Amino acid sequence: MADQSGPLIIIGGHEDKEGDKVILKEVVKRIDGGKLILATVASHEREGYFETYAEVFGELGLDNLVELYVNERQEALAAKAADILDDAAGIFFTGGDQLRISSQIGDTPIEKFVREIHERGGLVAGTSAGASVMSETMLVRGSSQESHRIGDLHMAPGLGLMRHVIIDQHFAERGRIGRLLGAVAQNPRVLGIGIDEDTAIVVEGDAFRVIGAGAVYVVDGAGVTHSNIAEASPELTLSMYNVRLHVLSSGDRFSLAERSPEEPR
Amino acid sequence: MADQSGPLIIIGGHEDKEGDKVILKEVVKRIDGGKLILATVASHEREGYFETYAEVFGELGLDNLVELYVNERQEALAAKAADILDDAAGIFFTGGDQLRISSQIGDTPIEKFVREIHERGGLVAGTSAGASVMSETMLVRGSSQESHRIGDLHMAPGLGLMRHVIIDQHFAERGRIGRLLGAVAQNPRVLGIGIDEDTAIVVEGDAFRVIGAGAVYVVDGAGVTHSNIAEASPELTLSMYNVRLHVLSSGDRFSLAERSPEEPR
Repeated sequence: MADQSGPLIIIGGHEDKEGDKVILKEVVKRIDGGKLILATVASHEREGYFETYAEVFGELGLDNLVELYVNERQEALAAKAADILDDAAGIFFTGGDQLRISSQIGDTPIEKFVREIHERGGLVAGTSAGASVMSETMLVRGSSQESHRIGDLHMAPGLGLMRHVIIDQHFAERGRIGRLLGAVAQNPRVLGIGIDEDTAIVVEGDAFRVIGAGAVYVVDGAGVTHSNIAEASPELTLSMYNVRLHVLSSGDRFSLAERSPEEPR
Repeated sequence: MADQSGPLIIIGGHEDKEGDKVILKEVVKRIDGGKLILATVASHEREGYFETYAEVFGELGLDNLVELYVNERQEALAAKAADILDDAAGIFFTGGDQLRISSQIGDTPIEKFVREIHERGGLVAGTSAGASVMSETMLVRGSSQESHRIGDLHMAPGLGLMRHVIIDQHFAERGRIGRLLGAVAQNPRVLGIGIDEDTAIVVEGDAFRVIGAGAVYVVDGAGVTHSNIAEASPELTLSMYNVRLHVLSSGDRFSLAERSPEEPR
């Protein structure tokens, strides 16, 4: 394949920072001694994100960590904000609000640099909101822990680093299977990928591998024979027949090209 | 079909008692002026179950309601406890602990009478714990709102009024897709049926219809090509490929014989 794109590490939130740190170790391995940008732009306030990550990345031997925070879109539009990205080996989007990421950096020099990092083989990682934003169309809001109503789903254009998927995070912990199914019902072209906390997919080329403690759910709507998603009433409870579902855990590999898990040997 | 068995109404818990009362109306309709036994045996204390249901059933025109509570198994073994069931048109199991139902009435005259009510065409209904107990093997305990570990599932023999299924309740509300998948992985012969709150399936013959406000999830493991459920480590996160999943809502019908929703016309 001619695709030179770098890996994506897409994390379901709350990745372990005290135990084995499997996911953050994978980030460090991929950065391979280079500079990592920690983009805390999803957060409404800077809080302590950078300090927390600086400490744990430091323990793992990654010291070249630079924060990217954008308080106002104006800053993202200014070319100098993108300077710090110039020699970065990768970028890591922390959690918060995915709309903050897309609205603050969408179509700015920063977004362009993120794409360049990815295209030249660098790492793009994201956790929680930073995971959702990876897809072209991203889930912004929807039902958790309740029956999914067809109108109860809000989507927005994401960064589009991973095509033909919708990512959801904190998946088991927040009971989000209903809303992910609803998203896939809207257009079965997209695969729904629900990622539990402390769990990640490492995307390389047209396949991914699961790492971490929890599960990854893949919802494939290609064979769906009926859904009521296009009905007029937003209060209607979702109905959807013949969904294909895969539950993946650490070590499992999934081919995006074949829309199928790779069977264990 | 020669099957004279009565209907089952299996409710995911918290059926509406103040609004349209769709599910309880269905119960009243099926009782058709006869006597309904309200079995509060799932509860460790009598609390106010009977009074609550007596009020709402009274509003719906069902006045012939008799409580069946069993404090000690000894009472269930005494033949007289079964006397009140003699001329009942149906029985309704309220919520609590499904192991209370099975351990208190299993293999007693009461269980025999419940089976007789069902076999002679009477109604057997149950909500929450009263729903779980309908199957031959029932879910007792397992993960909610977290990644499903293969060892984190406790099952027990239920009343066996509905064969080849595992019922789970409070389904969306408690994020239980993981544990239902785990149960099906153990033996794909059983269909997993997850029922949201204020939602029910009405089983007649070898089909059911969905009523109420939420969704019913049907997990079919027949086509599963790989799972790790038989691995030794109970801490392992579930992995399961090629599950078929149906999401059903009010009005949808499902054929248990064909393991398939009936396509809308």
